[in-house]
Amino acid sequence: MTLYMIGLGLNDEKDISLKGLEAVKKCKTIYLEKYTSILHCDIKKLEELYGKKVIIADRDMVESKAEDTILKDAAETDTAFLVVGDVFGATTHTDLMIRARKNNIKIQIINNASILNAVGITGLELYKFGKTTSIVFPQENWMPQTPYDVLRENQKMNLHTLCLLDIKVAEPSSEDLKKGINKIQKPRFMKISEAIDYLTKIEQKRKENIFTPETLCIGCARLGSENPTIIAGKAKDLIEKDFGEPLHCLIIPGKLHFIEEEALKFL
Amino acid sequence: MTLYMIGLGLNDEKDISLKGLEAVKKCKTIYLEKYTSILHCDIKKLEELYGKKVIIADRDMVESKAEDTILKDAAETDTAFLVVGDVFGATTHTDLMIRARKNNIKIQIINNASILNAVGITGLELYKFGKTTSIVFPQENWMPQTPYDVLRENQKMNLHTLCLLDIKVAEPSSEDLKKGINKIQKPRFMKISEAIDYLTKIEQKRKENIFTPETLCIGCARLGSENPTIIAGKAKDLIEKDFGEPLHCLIIPGKLHFIEEEALKFL
Repeated sequence: MTLYMIGLGLNDEKDISLKGLEAVKKCKTIYLEKYTSILHCDIKKLEELYGKKVIIADRDMVESKAEDTILKDAAETDTAFLVVGDVFGATTHTDLMIRARKNNIKIQIINNASILNAVGITGLELYKFGKTTSIVFPQENWMPQTPYDVLRENQKMNLHTLCLLDIKVAEPSSEDLKKGINKIQKPRFMKISEAIDYLTKIEQKRKENIFTPETLCIGCARLGSENPTIIAGKAKDLIEKDFGEPLHCLIIPGKLHFIEEEALKFL
Repeated sequence: MTLYMIGLGLNDEKDISLKGLEAVKKCKTIYLEKYTSILHCDIKKLEELYGKKVIIADRDMVESKAEDTILKDAAETDTAFLVVGDVFGATTHTDLMIRARKNNIKIQIINNASILNAVGITGLELYKFGKTTSIVFPQENWMPQTPYDVLRENQKMNLHTLCLLDIKVAEPSSEDLKKGINKIQKPRFMKISEAIDYLTKIEQKRKENIFTPETLCIGCARLGSENPTIIAGKAKDLIEKDFGEPLHCLIIPGKLHFIEEEALKFL
């Protein structure tokens, strides 16, 4: 049978495409992956729309137990695997596709919007984004400098840098895990101010003048929804702003074309 | 009133989101931009679904006459501007958004899938794509080397390169234009073999060993549809393959992660 891997888009139950909804209605079993992003509506809204129950697939199920759940179902009957945003935002979904193919399960991809193209609303040209980077919540002795390195390389080529900000959903804390405690923490979403603080701390160590209080940034919150907040300004000013509800992301523009400059005036 | 800028997705009338369709049904006037990409269904299919007439917006209307058409309508009544793929694939749409804002017209963006995220089906990690480049049909004395330069820079950083291939829809030829003849040509879509030939010709001039017959490439056709063709192989082998109907694009992968390598084995 077929495993339908379906993007839900960025906001709520109504961002699915007509084609995606048709496929969901054909499927007997429906899984929703919601640990790499968040949906801005209750799961009940999805269930009402689909007329079916939706099973939450957590990281453990997708990465370790797919053969006993998602792939087992897909071998027997049409099965949907729903992803917030587009299907291949995360490596874990590519891995699921590979495992499905190894099991001779037919795959049908139904695409949707991703944060990677929704940033176009800023007026920055999508073709001129370099490598994308993620900023994770720093831990005691662990604060990867990768985002700083990516920014430096993109800057060299005059490219824009999109920083995706960490989310922790339904995960135990690393401190608890060390103690063998598997207690689910409250969801956490990194804010733009935290991302600016992160890059500033690395700048203070590295002193390569890559990210300073004067660096032009664009903070974006809730892209793809009806009420996004998008503000352009210097890092030292943006760090003071309240962008409201998650998800947030931070863009550090490269060299600007005059149309891009004009677009930023409206932010 | 509101100008709804709505992505239609990559294939046919059913790729619009439920939210996009709701917005279209609210709008009195509906424009469709179809010169930067193509829809794989007849416009009548859209009109049947919407229950409304769809006005084709050509490049001249969007770039030079928007104030007398799209923006004039949007100032008076809810108006939809439909774009194949996602809304901000092309600079011309950013420019339309800026002009709408200058005229105090409210903008609502409804995102959809773009070729920039649909390439995720190859198994290549989307975060590891560098700058995107376009390959245009070469003309007598004009064969820009930009794609080669972009590829070189992305390779230096081990990033993947996506080459979008030229389309000519409803445009007069440059030869005719020089003679003052405005005769619309038959649509033309660049094939993967033509793109490989283009890069090979630049390599022969530049000899920097950036793109050789041995270079690993991924040719993709009709991404986002139900029958995509995706083949990975050396440039010298892919140039012989028939990828069928448009649109085509060409990916030159950078350094591969082992999950990406495994995914490519299925192509």
